[in-house]
Amino acid sequence: MRQPAGRSARRSGGERKPREERWAELIEVATQVFYEKGYDGASLQDIADRLGMLKGSLYYYIQSKEDLLFDVISTVHRDGLAVVRARAEVEGSPLEKLESVIVGHVEHTCRNLVPTAVFLHELSALPIDRRKEVLGSEHAYQGVFRDLIEQAQRQGDVRADLDPRLAALSVLGSTNWVYRWFRPGGAFTPEQIGSELAEMSIRGIATEKALAARA
Amino acid sequence: MRQPAGRSARRSGGERKPREERWAELIEVATQVFYEKGYDGASLQDIADRLGMLKGSLYYYIQSKEDLLFDVISTVHRDGLAVVRARAEVEGSPLEKLESVIVGHVEHTCRNLVPTAVFLHELSALPIDRRKEVLGSEHAYQGVFRDLIEQAQRQGDVRADLDPRLAALSVLGSTNWVYRWFRPGGAFTPEQIGSELAEMSIRGIATEKALAARA
Repeated sequence: MRQPAGRSARRSGGERKPREERWAELIEVATQVFYEKGYDGASLQDIADRLGMLKGSLYYYIQSKEDLLFDVISTVHRDGLAVVRARAEVEGSPLEKLESVIVGHVEHTCRNLVPTAVFLHELSALPIDRRKEVLGSEHAYQGVFRDLIEQAQRQGDVRADLDPRLAALSVLGSTNWVYRWFRPGGAFTPEQIGSELAEMSIRGIATEKALAARA
Repeated sequence: MRQPAGRSARRSGGERKPREERWAELIEVATQVFYEKGYDGASLQDIADRLGMLKGSLYYYIQSKEDLLFDVISTVHRDGLAVVRARAEVEGSPLEKLESVIVGHVEHTCRNLVPTAVFLHELSALPIDRRKEVLGSEHAYQGVFRDLIEQAQRQGDVRADLDPRLAALSVLGSTNWVYRWFRPGGAFTPEQIGSELAEMSIRGIATEKALAARA
């Protein structure tokens, strides 16, 4: 993000908006446009038009369309990762932590449907260095799930014959998928969906011993 | 798909390719280009270039880029639906059928990664009437899973407190997700992944009674 020239913040005849507010608006509109038209199909002109700005004015904030995509993708990812990491560190057994992580992940996804869709569909549009910057975090994300499953397995709470990576991918698939079907105001709240998906996930991987102790 | 003019099939100085072969090549290339560039970012020129054809020659096969997307999306969807419907009709209990359906769905997805990705990412690029034509089938797809879960629930094999639609979406999420991480020649075969994901899905939703009878 470039520093804006002083004149960018004050516009003749208009109100002065704080730079942070303009940036937040820009990101919100860019997210929506990338979602609707796809990254390749979206232009800076589309984004400027929706903001009621001249396209040239966008260059006070960014150097390229790619800067916007990178911000959208890295922000939703970083925020989600913070949610699941915080829940992985609370008091409890690895299986209890995993359950809480799943609920938190589902709730975060339900509340960030559009940026999540852009993240999942457009990551590959980033060049390799920026993708790696996010991909490191993607592995970190999956790692939170896999580490807890491995820990639970060592304690005899997850079936010994289960591959922890495959189990993590199954849980992530089931939970990430809400970005495709959840609609606010629908039959279920994010909390209900989180709780039900967590229940199915835990039963899917846990040993009978762990399930009996849990009940 | 339009009928080609007679002259399109025979080219001066070149070999004559059967029309079906040219069409299959066209769809394969279009699938790859949509996957790499996104539907909005892909042009008929890109597709013609990869085929070594003139852009104008594409109009012997299609009326628009949209015709290609529709063919890619409806084909992978129709073929997958045929796989799961066939498995839902074999001998067995609803829970056994569901297990077989899951395995078949995962194997089909692993063997059709690129068209599946185009289907999942670009469905919304189709206009409403063509989307509905596929969406009918999408509900049909989800319906195969939901119907079996409801039948199993009536027999006491799926937990009574579980919403069948939510359970179907959880299973579909876990299994569809392989389109993002499966790589041919990797650590697991499609059969192994199908079997492991089915095991986790069934355990996630089944009653203790059903699991005991299964073991």
